[in-house]
Amino acid sequence: MKQLLIASTSTIHGSGYLDYLLDDLNVFFKNCQTILFIPYARPGGISHDAYTQKAQEAFQKINKNVIGIHEFESAADAINQAEGIFTGGGNTFVLLSQLYKNNCIEALKNAIHSGTPYLGTSAGSNICGLTINTTNDMPIVYPPSFKALAFVPFNINPHYLDPIPNTKHMGETRETRIKEFHAYNTFPVIGLREGSWLEVKGKTITLKGTLEARIFEYEKEPYEIKSDTTLQHLK
Amino acid sequence: MKQLLIASTSTIHGSGYLDYLLDDLNVFFKNCQTILFIPYARPGGISHDAYTQKAQEAFQKINKNVIGIHEFESAADAINQAEGIFTGGGNTFVLLSQLYKNNCIEALKNAIHSGTPYLGTSAGSNICGLTINTTNDMPIVYPPSFKALAFVPFNINPHYLDPIPNTKHMGETRETRIKEFHAYNTFPVIGLREGSWLEVKGKTITLKGTLEARIFEYEKEPYEIKSDTTLQHLK
Repeated sequence: MKQLLIASTSTIHGSGYLDYLLDDLNVFFKNCQTILFIPYARPGGISHDAYTQKAQEAFQKINKNVIGIHEFESAADAINQAEGIFTGGGNTFVLLSQLYKNNCIEALKNAIHSGTPYLGTSAGSNICGLTINTTNDMPIVYPPSFKALAFVPFNINPHYLDPIPNTKHMGETRETRIKEFHAYNTFPVIGLREGSWLEVKGKTITLKGTLEARIFEYEKEPYEIKSDTTLQHLK
Repeated sequence: MKQLLIASTSTIHGSGYLDYLLDDLNVFFKNCQTILFIPYARPGGISHDAYTQKAQEAFQKINKNVIGIHEFESAADAINQAEGIFTGGGNTFVLLSQLYKNNCIEALKNAIHSGTPYLGTSAGSNICGLTINTTNDMPIVYPPSFKALAFVPFNINPHYLDPIPNTKHMGETRETRIKEFHAYNTFPVIGLREGSWLEVKGKTITLKGTLEARIFEYEKEPYEIKSDTTLQHLK
């Protein structure tokens, strides 16, 4: 049975890395002693080692070990053998490029469909959608494709941000950007606010956390859904 | 002699489309009766016709005609024959994809290097850099390459935004994103604030408008430059 926890962000304002999720992660990874960490997204350009250490420090609080995928000779083998997987945030283009380069795409699909629990935050959540067409990240590298892992039948927009009232900045709002996406694509987009996550258990997809999420469907007005709403009907 | 006006934005807060630039555009396009408009970036997903009409209304104020590139059978021929060219903002990925698809890349390079005056705003400015790796736009379509027109020897980040003080949002600041860019690329990036533009005359590139711009060079601390600073030494 597929088991995923797809979070908008690793960190909410005023608390430490993964802190707000640790109670849930303790349950989610209950059968895992060691978590395979995928640090490819390199937030701020930090090294794989430094990023893995950050994940280790968080998971130590719930007595889990963390090992970086870059420490293995074969990334695909590391995924095949993992008890549980965590892909951290950073740059989605860098992350997806590395996943293609290191032959991780099929390995991740096989592992997750076989039931290996998967945690994603931010960029690590973006890649759980159909494509990375709705990432907020800067396209600092050119990946071989925008196609992602398709663990959910829609796209994700993490760090979803409501329009800022009275701003003088003329850049597009997030809603305008997703509207532009729907000029070229028809699948739904889930705007996940910081502090929200999707829980996937087999075929059931449920919004978790205290906040509402914003749903963008092709040729429909965007709308809000409450926590505990299920989403597997979207397509 | 190359002549470009590469603007951060089409519109500054509280004024109409292109209004803040019209006096300069009257001089810049003094030898042009008709401007070829490239509406491919389709802001908010609007049609080529609707977008071209918006540009027409602005240029009517300085007694110039505007014709949309989509009204020609051959986009490349339209560029070859143009007296002046304006590429409007919107989505940089959509814009660049259409330029490749319609064989406009070489045509634009030839025209601009032959002296056809070119105005770009936002996405239309992004493509004047070496690549579109530093666009702020959502990657709603997959272009055949991120390589752009290279009219200036660096990249442009339009709508440059300073970090917002006391924000609780955990998404990356613009400066963090450009820092990540420099983990994978070595060429400079010019953060152009809304209301600033670059004036290119032959080999000379000058910052214009009243604001400072922020310069990001590989392995250097970012720094500010004042209006009227020249930039052709950057590489």
